[in-house]
Amino acid sequence: MTSATIVTAAMLAIGDELLSGRTKDKNIGHLADMLTMVGIDLREVRIVADEEQAIVEAVNALRSRYDYVFTSGGIGPTHDDITADAISKAFGVECIHDPNAMELLGAMYARRGMEFTDARKRMARMPIGARHIPNPVSTAPGFAIGNVYVMAGVPQVFQAMLDSLLPNLTTGTPVLSRTVRSPYGEGDIGAPLAEVQKNHPDTSIGSYPKFDGRSFSTDIVIRARDAGVLAAAEADVAAMIEAISRSRQST
Amino acid sequence: MTSATIVTAAMLAIGDELLSGRTKDKNIGHLADMLTMVGIDLREVRIVADEEQAIVEAVNALRSRYDYVFTSGGIGPTHDDITADAISKAFGVECIHDPNAMELLGAMYARRGMEFTDARKRMARMPIGARHIPNPVSTAPGFAIGNVYVMAGVPQVFQAMLDSLLPNLTTGTPVLSRTVRSPYGEGDIGAPLAEVQKNHPDTSIGSYPKFDGRSFSTDIVIRARDAGVLAAAEADVAAMIEAISRSRQST
Repeated sequence: MTSATIVTAAMLAIGDELLSGRTKDKNIGHLADMLTMVGIDLREVRIVADEEQAIVEAVNALRSRYDYVFTSGGIGPTHDDITADAISKAFGVECIHDPNAMELLGAMYARRGMEFTDARKRMARMPIGARHIPNPVSTAPGFAIGNVYVMAGVPQVFQAMLDSLLPNLTTGTPVLSRTVRSPYGEGDIGAPLAEVQKNHPDTSIGSYPKFDGRSFSTDIVIRARDAGVLAAAEADVAAMIEAISRSRQST
Repeated sequence: MTSATIVTAAMLAIGDELLSGRTKDKNIGHLADMLTMVGIDLREVRIVADEEQAIVEAVNALRSRYDYVFTSGGIGPTHDDITADAISKAFGVECIHDPNAMELLGAMYARRGMEFTDARKRMARMPIGARHIPNPVSTAPGFAIGNVYVMAGVPQVFQAMLDSLLPNLTTGTPVLSRTVRSPYGEGDIGAPLAEVQKNHPDTSIGSYPKFDGRSFSTDIVIRARDAGVLAAAEADVAAMIEAISRSRQST
């Protein structure tokens, strides 16, 4: 087996609306998909309210523990957008109207004949020294400081920022996966599947029940960073289901 | 103003599949909706993998900080279902095959002429002394210990468990909300909206941009526990939008 490089990440989704139920988050699942694809392991997600102390605590806990932290939400122009301040506080640096962001936004509003209001100027605020994350959708940039990447909460903007960001990240060996569908519920496959997992320690085998309103079936997902290791485990899972099927037909 | 009772909660969603992107969580949004409705404030959500240490750390951090903790996932019959063990460890108590759950499950499988396998018996495991959370969908109960409520990850089962649980929880004064739709983007309403928020300190006013692919509009959500307080702030937000609209027509 070749040695695998492991790169870890966490996400912090920020916003009262996610906790009140008003907005159903779409960014967590998207980030999870994209990171899995490029070979970064998403290890933890937190959702907190638009409250400075909660954001500071969460971002400091996560950035010390994982290689990357991605945040969503709270970087717009209104009074409840406090993410730039909170991130600055977490890093112990000043939150400023970034000169490059001011120029970028000023030029954009001038082109559109719109007033560059104080509210709009809030979108240029970021910790001093932060790098920009380009925003091809609506100009106002996200920003990165240290290993923390701060993006918008609006899914189209979050996705565009992530797209411009991903090529520049250090990535690891991607986790490959195969899904084997089992017509049997978890109660039937539990014991033999645990045996398969034991015989393939370099894989992670997950079992996901589906309920159609009457009965349970199961998706068995095998994950590994090595294609050969993955294929061997997949074959054993398929053989296991075959064996259950044969034993049922013979009784 | 009448005094409000505040009851807080956190959620811990458990499962590798949520972090790999394979499964898009549906339980967080549902729990948020239901708790808001009954008057419990969801303050924080965490998602962690099926890893004992991660679950123990998260549940201990959350249960000491909030009135209630609700978990989803990891209580099925397969080897990757380790939530019962992790919760027991977090509380420092033994994880046992609960006698009542064994009886319940044994009787159900007997009725259905199915074998009560060792895998299925895993579903009766819970911390010693835990209370059951009834599962009208598929029998295997969730459980509660201290202020932690442990439920299934399959949304239909999670929802049914939550339904049977909610009437027995201590609830607070519900947060009421009104949404005012603004045809203007956040840059236009940012300054006057901050003013309205300042004049209505007992409300929390959130501003949620929507992007239709060409331009931004905004949903302004006003939240308060008192109906009169809410109505006064709503009137001021509506007046603010009227004022912007008039100033635009006159130029």
